[in-house]
Amino acid sequence: MHSTPWEYRYAYRAQRMGSSVIRELLKLTEQPDLISFAGGLPAPELFPVEKLREACNEVLSTLGPQSLQYGTTEGYLPLREMIARHTARYGIEVTAENILITSGSQQALDFIGRLFINNGDHIVVESPTYLGALQAWRAYGANYVSVRSDEHGMIVDELEAALRAGPKFIYVLPNFQNPSGSTLTLERRLKLVELADKYGVPIVEDDPYGQLRYSGDHLPSVVSLDSEYRGPNGGCYSGNVIYLSTFSKLLAPGIRLAWMIAPPEVIRKLVMAKQAADLHTATFNQYVAYEVAKGGFLDEHIKVIRATYKERRDVMLETMDETWPSQAQWTRPEGGMFLWGILPPGMDSAEVLKEAVTRKVAFVPGAPFHPNGGGENTMRINFSYSSPETIREGITRLGFLLKELLVKN
Amino acid sequence: MHSTPWEYRYAYRAQRMGSSVIRELLKLTEQPDLISFAGGLPAPELFPVEKLREACNEVLSTLGPQSLQYGTTEGYLPLREMIARHTARYGIEVTAENILITSGSQQALDFIGRLFINNGDHIVVESPTYLGALQAWRAYGANYVSVRSDEHGMIVDELEAALRAGPKFIYVLPNFQNPSGSTLTLERRLKLVELADKYGVPIVEDDPYGQLRYSGDHLPSVVSLDSEYRGPNGGCYSGNVIYLSTFSKLLAPGIRLAWMIAPPEVIRKLVMAKQAADLHTATFNQYVAYEVAKGGFLDEHIKVIRATYKERRDVMLETMDETWPSQAQWTRPEGGMFLWGILPPGMDSAEVLKEAVTRKVAFVPGAPFHPNGGGENTMRINFSYSSPETIREGITRLGFLLKELLVKN
Repeated sequence: MHSTPWEYRYAYRAQRMGSSVIRELLKLTEQPDLISFAGGLPAPELFPVEKLREACNEVLSTLGPQSLQYGTTEGYLPLREMIARHTARYGIEVTAENILITSGSQQALDFIGRLFINNGDHIVVESPTYLGALQAWRAYGANYVSVRSDEHGMIVDELEAALRAGPKFIYVLPNFQNPSGSTLTLERRLKLVELADKYGVPIVEDDPYGQLRYSGDHLPSVVSLDSEYRGPNGGCYSGNVIYLSTFSKLLAPGIRLAWMIAPPEVIRKLVMAKQAADLHTATFNQYVAYEVAKGGFLDEHIKVIRATYKERRDVMLETMDETWPSQAQWTRPEGGMFLWGILPPGMDSAEVLKEAVTRKVAFVPGAPFHPNGGGENTMRINFSYSSPETIREGITRLGFLLKELLVKN
Repeated sequence: MHSTPWEYRYAYRAQRMGSSVIRELLKLTEQPDLISFAGGLPAPELFPVEKLREACNEVLSTLGPQSLQYGTTEGYLPLREMIARHTARYGIEVTAENILITSGSQQALDFIGRLFINNGDHIVVESPTYLGALQAWRAYGANYVSVRSDEHGMIVDELEAALRAGPKFIYVLPNFQNPSGSTLTLERRLKLVELADKYGVPIVEDDPYGQLRYSGDHLPSVVSLDSEYRGPNGGCYSGNVIYLSTFSKLLAPGIRLAWMIAPPEVIRKLVMAKQAADLHTATFNQYVAYEVAKGGFLDEHIKVIRATYKERRDVMLETMDETWPSQAQWTRPEGGMFLWGILPPGMDSAEVLKEAVTRKVAFVPGAPFHPNGGGENTMRINFSYSSPETIREGITRLGFLLKELLVKN
């Protein structure tokens, strides 16, 4: 292959981009007949295809030309207003002025990097944490100060030391975290808000799964606790927390629709960033999502998702209880799409994966989710995508494999 | 309004973002009854609403779940293959491996900045040139070396001096350029390719309007001329030119679908950039566009667009010939969506706009399209959006106003 002048012209940014470890590992899992718990996919059989078909027809019949035209960078106003009303139901008063529609939450993460991260800036993250955020911000030169987490989320007692590093912000996924499935307890949420205030450090709360709870009680979001803590103004948004959520897990990821809540002055900067990045999120997709959601359909639909994922989680946990070796541990998530396996120290889950793939079952090794190393003995296991029968079969295979490997060592 | 900790935390990048001059000016034009030639909107009444409705129904009926799931970062393979076949018809042999689907061409411009522009890098651009590119790359710290252009596009005789600045690449819009409507002649295209080769500087060719020609003959793209110039391998893609095009003007902008053609090694880096930026372009939109386009519908549809825009261009030019003062000049574009007015030197089109708005007619002043200043007496006028009657009325009003202002001065 002949070379082109482009390859000598990359900016430092592009030279820093490496192929993701996980991407390489996932190539191993691209085989027919392989049971994969590696992806982070919602169950496609639950996508409300018929409802979306009706919505496409309705939008194109009644608002065809305008739904296909260029739109405003902020996003479709009725959709933003609907999101504001929805947010108010959960105790945070915001208006459309606080909301930007993004092309998926990944874009929101990228914009946060664009707006706030200078090369060398410190960001406080949980360890493990969401890989998409680590990748997005690494491109802007972020250094990660990691705070360990356990089955109850970030170990907030260790946060204060991290805050002394003078970080730009704290990134937290309080509900059914990707990758670990852990949920931050109310006590820890309150402590997080208190410490963030004490050190004057703002928070990015990433909440893609908050509505997908299968057991336990709903906990107030960090943004609402922060607003209460700061405000004499009741439920008014304090502006200290940028909050992200998405339609990917509630409706479908293939329409790429998410939103972020931020103070109006930050939204203004985000709008400038989005203008340069992609002008605006697809108008048509926003109209269709609004049409689907406006009559309250999502509330009903979420019940169906919850019931299905709850069954899958329960089958997975049951099968692990029955077939996994006693030396392994795992989280029992109250919602979301993932659980987290912890193998005995010294056991390398990336090595386990190689063997697992030959037995036609896969997961994601946990190490890459740890920004500052560690976690070689951990693994992320998805329970939303596969049927209960497939889960039982795949988890049993993994259980046998782990037992075999433990006997060998 | 109380302040938040975010406002003291912006990265240098965000401090560099200013509100766009044009955005501010366009606020003036948000009035009912105002005839606006300011936007860059395609005619919404030409959007193939019914065809899109059928395609949405077909996709959701036959490929529902997969069209709504997460997709590959590169884009939907059948769509990329179709684009490769289409490109081959125009003399450049590429495969799907050379193609990345983006969320509109603005995203392609942003990615080019992300991959190639370090703070302080020089980029050669036409003056005037597309504002969206200037904005996207300014965020990465680009310095613009501008080459003057006339009604035949970039004045290539002045290019060599610019190339001595050691630029990262040359950015050119050869067909019916936004903003000026000019088309680069064949002779100048050949000279551009020759000079780029002589100095080893690659080219970004932005071609959103290439299919929208209303008079004159189709000219070979810069990418195909470059491939011929370099290659002993006939029509094989040379890799020296990154080529951008879009469905926004052929189908509809509100679905945010565009593509870029680049060497495979650049595509691999672009994929990493896109993973961090927004994971992938909306799966559903790609399936729908493929469904619409696969049977050859676009060829027929483009004829309708051409006929409509040709009439609008002709009406605009006729009305200008009849009603505009002889001291003003304007381009006679062979395609696209814009023409370019040149007022007598010393006349400021931004001042003219303020007066024009009081008479309920608007355009965009030309100065902001000039990266290094100048062009205060120029103006961009869109002819694709308004009906022929509206064009006649608005252009006549502008003509009267210009005559009045010329008498006064």
